Amino acid sequence: MGGPGPGRPRRADARRNIEALVEAATRLLAVDPDASMNEVARAAGVGRVTLYGHFGSRTALVAEVVDRAIAQTDEALAQLDLDGDPREALGRLLEATWQLTHRFGAVVVAASRALPPEQMRRAHEGLAVRVRGLLERGREAGRFRGDMPLEWQLGVVQAVLHGASAAVHRGEVAAEDAPWLVRETVLAALAA
Amino acid sequence: MGGPGPGRPRRADARRNIEALVEAATRLLAVDPDASMNEVARAAGVGRVTLYGHFGSRTALVAEVVDRAIAQTDEALAQLDLDGDPREALGRLLEATWQLTHRFGAVVVAASRALPPEQMRRAHEGLAVRVRGLLERGREAGRFRGDMPLEWQLGVVQAVLHGASAAVHRGEVAAEDAPWLVRETVLAALAA
Repeated sequence: MGGPGPGRPRRADARRNIEALVEAATRLLAVDPDASMNEVARAAGVGRVTLYGHFGSRTALVAEVVDRAIAQTDEALAQLDLDGDPREALGRLLEATWQLTHRFGAVVVAASRALPPEQMRRAHEGLAVRVRGLLERGREAGRFRGDMPLEWQLGVVQAVLHGASAAVHRGEVAAEDAPWLVRETVLAALAA
Repeated sequence: MGGPGPGRPRRADARRNIEALVEAATRLLAVDPDASMNEVARAAGVGRVTLYGHFGSRTALVAEVVDRAIAQTDEALAQLDLDGDPREALGRLLEATWQLTHRFGAVVVAASRALPPEQMRRAHEGLAVRVRGLLERGREAGRFRGDMPLEWQLGVVQAVLHGASAAVHRGEVAAEDAPWLVRETVLAALAA
C-alpha cells in the first residue's frame, strides 16, 4: 500500500528516470545543441529537482549522453571489416564513422561546446585506435605518405570529420554529401 | 590638487587601464588559455573592481583580445602578394596565417573555449575572404579540384589550421614543422 518502500522500487524508479533523461537529452541535443536542462526535464516527464538530483549540471548530463553515444559507436565500429587495402579500409571506417556521427547529429556540437577538449579527445579513443592502426599499416605499405608525423595525420582525420559535422549543422553541406567529401578529402590529404 | 578631476584625466586613466589589461590578457592567454581574470588583473597592475568595470566578464575580455589580434592579423595579411599561381599564393597565405596564429599562441585555444562558434567564424572573415578568392581563381584555372563545394574546401582550410594550433598546443607537433604540414596537407586535399 502507499508509495514505494525504501529498497528496490526506489532504485528502479531512479534507473527509469535516468534512462528517460538520457534518452530525452540525446534526442533534443541531436537537433538543438543548446537544448536546456528545463527542456530535457520536460521532454523526459521528470521534475527539475529529480533531474538535478541525477545530473548536478548540464555538463554532467552532456557527458553521460556522450559516453553512451561513444559506447554505441564503438560497438558498431567493432563490426567493421578493416582488413585489406588500408586506403579502402580507411574509406569504409570514415563512412561508417560519419553515419554514426550523423545519427547523433548536433550532440557532437553540444559536446564540443560543453566538454573540455581533454574529454572530447577521450571520446574519440575508439576511432583513434582504429585510424592509427590503419595509418601505421598504410604508411608501411606505401599507401599513405610517411613524411608527416602519424599524430598529425590522425589530427587531420579528426579535424575533417569535425569540420563536416559543423558544416552540415550550419547547412553549408548536405548530410548525404558528407561521407563522400570526408572520404575524398582525407584520402587526398594522406595520399603517398 | 588631489586626485584627477572628472574630465580628461579620468578618461586617460581608463584608456591606460584598458590598454594594460588587454596587453596583459594577450600575453597570459598566449601561454595559458585558462589564465584567470585575477591573474590578468595582477599582471596589469590593476584592481579587480577596475577590471570588471571595463570588462564585465572573462568572455568580454577574451573577445576584446581576439578583436585586436584579428585587426593586427588582417593588417599583416593585407601586405601579402596573392597574385600569380593560386596554389603557390595559397601556400604563402597559409604560411603567413600560421605565423600570425602562432604569434598569438594559445589565444586561439582560449577563444575557441570562451567564444560562441558564430563569433569565432566572424573572427576569421579576413582570412576567409582571401582563401575564398584564391579558391575561386584556382578552381577556374583547374589548379584546385572543382567537384567539391567551395564552402567545404574553405572549411577544410580552417579545420586544418585549427587542428595545427591544437596539435602544437598539445605538444604533438613542433611549432616549426606546422607551416609545412598545414601547407602540404591543404594543398594535397585541394589538388585537382
